[in-house]
Amino acid sequence: MESLKTKAYGAKASLIDQFSSLSRMDIERQPPKDDEVQIDVLYCGVCHSDVHQVRNDWANTIYPCVPGHEVIGRISQTGSGVTKFNVGDTVGVGCMVDSCGQCSSCHEGEEQYCEGPVSWTATYNGYMKPNGNGYNTFGGYSTSIVVKESFVLRIPDSLDISKAAPILCAGITTYSPLRHWNTKPGDNVAIVGLGGLGHMGVKLAKAMGANVTVITHTEDKRALAEELGAHEVLIENDKKALKDHERTFDLILNTIPDKYDPNPFIKLLKRDGVFVAVGVLGPFTSPTNNMEVAMARRSVAGSVIGGIAETQEVLDFCAEHQILPDVEMIAIQDINKAYSRMLDEDVRFRFIIDMQSLKDEN
Amino acid sequence: MESLKTKAYGAKASLIDQFSSLSRMDIERQPPKDDEVQIDVLYCGVCHSDVHQVRNDWANTIYPCVPGHEVIGRISQTGSGVTKFNVGDTVGVGCMVDSCGQCSSCHEGEEQYCEGPVSWTATYNGYMKPNGNGYNTFGGYSTSIVVKESFVLRIPDSLDISKAAPILCAGITTYSPLRHWNTKPGDNVAIVGLGGLGHMGVKLAKAMGANVTVITHTEDKRALAEELGAHEVLIENDKKALKDHERTFDLILNTIPDKYDPNPFIKLLKRDGVFVAVGVLGPFTSPTNNMEVAMARRSVAGSVIGGIAETQEVLDFCAEHQILPDVEMIAIQDINKAYSRMLDEDVRFRFIIDMQSLKDEN
Repeated sequence: MESLKTKAYGAKASLIDQFSSLSRMDIERQPPKDDEVQIDVLYCGVCHSDVHQVRNDWANTIYPCVPGHEVIGRISQTGSGVTKFNVGDTVGVGCMVDSCGQCSSCHEGEEQYCEGPVSWTATYNGYMKPNGNGYNTFGGYSTSIVVKESFVLRIPDSLDISKAAPILCAGITTYSPLRHWNTKPGDNVAIVGLGGLGHMGVKLAKAMGANVTVITHTEDKRALAEELGAHEVLIENDKKALKDHERTFDLILNTIPDKYDPNPFIKLLKRDGVFVAVGVLGPFTSPTNNMEVAMARRSVAGSVIGGIAETQEVLDFCAEHQILPDVEMIAIQDINKAYSRMLDEDVRFRFIIDMQSLKDEN
Repeated sequence: MESLKTKAYGAKASLIDQFSSLSRMDIERQPPKDDEVQIDVLYCGVCHSDVHQVRNDWANTIYPCVPGHEVIGRISQTGSGVTKFNVGDTVGVGCMVDSCGQCSSCHEGEEQYCEGPVSWTATYNGYMKPNGNGYNTFGGYSTSIVVKESFVLRIPDSLDISKAAPILCAGITTYSPLRHWNTKPGDNVAIVGLGGLGHMGVKLAKAMGANVTVITHTEDKRALAEELGAHEVLIENDKKALKDHERTFDLILNTIPDKYDPNPFIKLLKRDGVFVAVGVLGPFTSPTNNMEVAMARRSVAGSVIGGIAETQEVLDFCAEHQILPDVEMIAIQDINKAYSRMLDEDVRFRFIIDMQSLKDEN
């Protein structure tokens, strides 16, 4: 079968070059194989890591780069062996589209920690090597996508599909560590950073019964945090407030997407408390002080998205608790402006691209 | 009752001054209060932290400083309310002689994480503030010591008392994290550093059924590690060996007492593996790379000694498994030479002071 020319927006080269930007391009999609489905993309969330990736901040970007790993759409075609989905089903695709399927992590439903030779395959900028011939994956900033059915999620009917997309990355990235470190009613949980991830962290931790404190760098976000239901708000540079909260948190989930010093947060943990960094994918700015870590048997941990089964779990959890991301809908033609506004923290809390805007383009 | 003049060895000022050294001094011990026992010191282990403390490496040393927190002795007198011990009992004192007794850590038998206003009281260099009048505590480099009975350990009859002292610090410091992070038969455990702590870590982890790898900085220690029963030995600067052992350990217990870079060790952990630093009480030399931590949901943790109940547990565990530290007995008159040799790693693996040598001094 012939490959399918598909409209997309992507980066032709690194956006560190200030004159470059995301622009319209056509990409080729292969028709679905036996175990794959083709999805008509309806909505795609704009994640902070999309900016990191197109700017090549992690020094691993393959160009052209078509971002997008918070995809909501409808099945438009199914491979002959597909059993889980039918044409017309409302589905989602998150950060992964494949993994080795052989290692202990894959067997235990933790595909995000796949130990195969090339680890898991990212929905975009995922370099696959079947038979030694590498090719790049293109994400959800496009009119359609083809994905193996075992990496496709079912969107519960009661979720508003125009808002649900961020659950597929921002939601699972905060849900997974909250569950892994056993957040339970009455726990004191701090969420650091109030962006796409942070605001989902607040909603999810609250739904699990935790007392939620938001730690943010600016007084401007206090009211927002309170609206989201935070029990308390701390401003990062308020030394007295931080001092007063030493030894008070069971779990601190830090969603800040750039480098920072973890030490001021470590002191806020109770004995056996855990600091989990989900945003920063590189070194911190300062060495951790092991005196502070050891003196209360604290842990400094990290976590990456969540497995496929757990992603279905968070979608179902959000449906049950009627949790939806707070989003602002944009047309794809406004994507570059949206990136600028996201870097200026001028979004509450996630942009979602209405993909009809791309379908309507010539 | 009058205070008791007691022979001791201690530092009058910081040993950073190269002309100073530990020397003979007389200290005052108070007679035992109702809940205290007086112990005739028979043996005292020489811990690496004794050197840090007398050199004021942690900027908190109160002089004069009489070190020693691996004390084995016999009860010579009991306070009127003492119920647990009788004159003549063989007992031990570890790193703590008191704690607040009121906080959740104390209630849960984790006195080493006491959250009281002055935390736990160290056996030496522990500044106590009853009624606002501070005084310093003096450790086991002395002929007798007076300790609250609830901080005194029972030495099982089957343990050789001339060798058991290091269990009270080196033993519990490695036993506690092995237990806390659930070391079980078949686990892959790495012990980094083969000194007083490390060699006990190897013996204890082996007795728990783990496959034990020693990671050391020098080929010289390979044979020693194998003699102790290590299943494998890695040399820290052998990059190929480290590469081959990425993702292989459930737990890495790092006993190195000086600053280091944790990153090369973090890569060696399996998914959900834990790196525990018990030796370094300050900042690492490099920021941890959260990419390496997060990509396998690893944790970087720290741990401090262990609680009193758990210290009794490790003594009993050592008796049951006939585990004893490997020690070299010295006279207290050789303590300064012993410090030099310890810094040169010329001890297998712990010096113990035979306190008869002090009793015999004029």
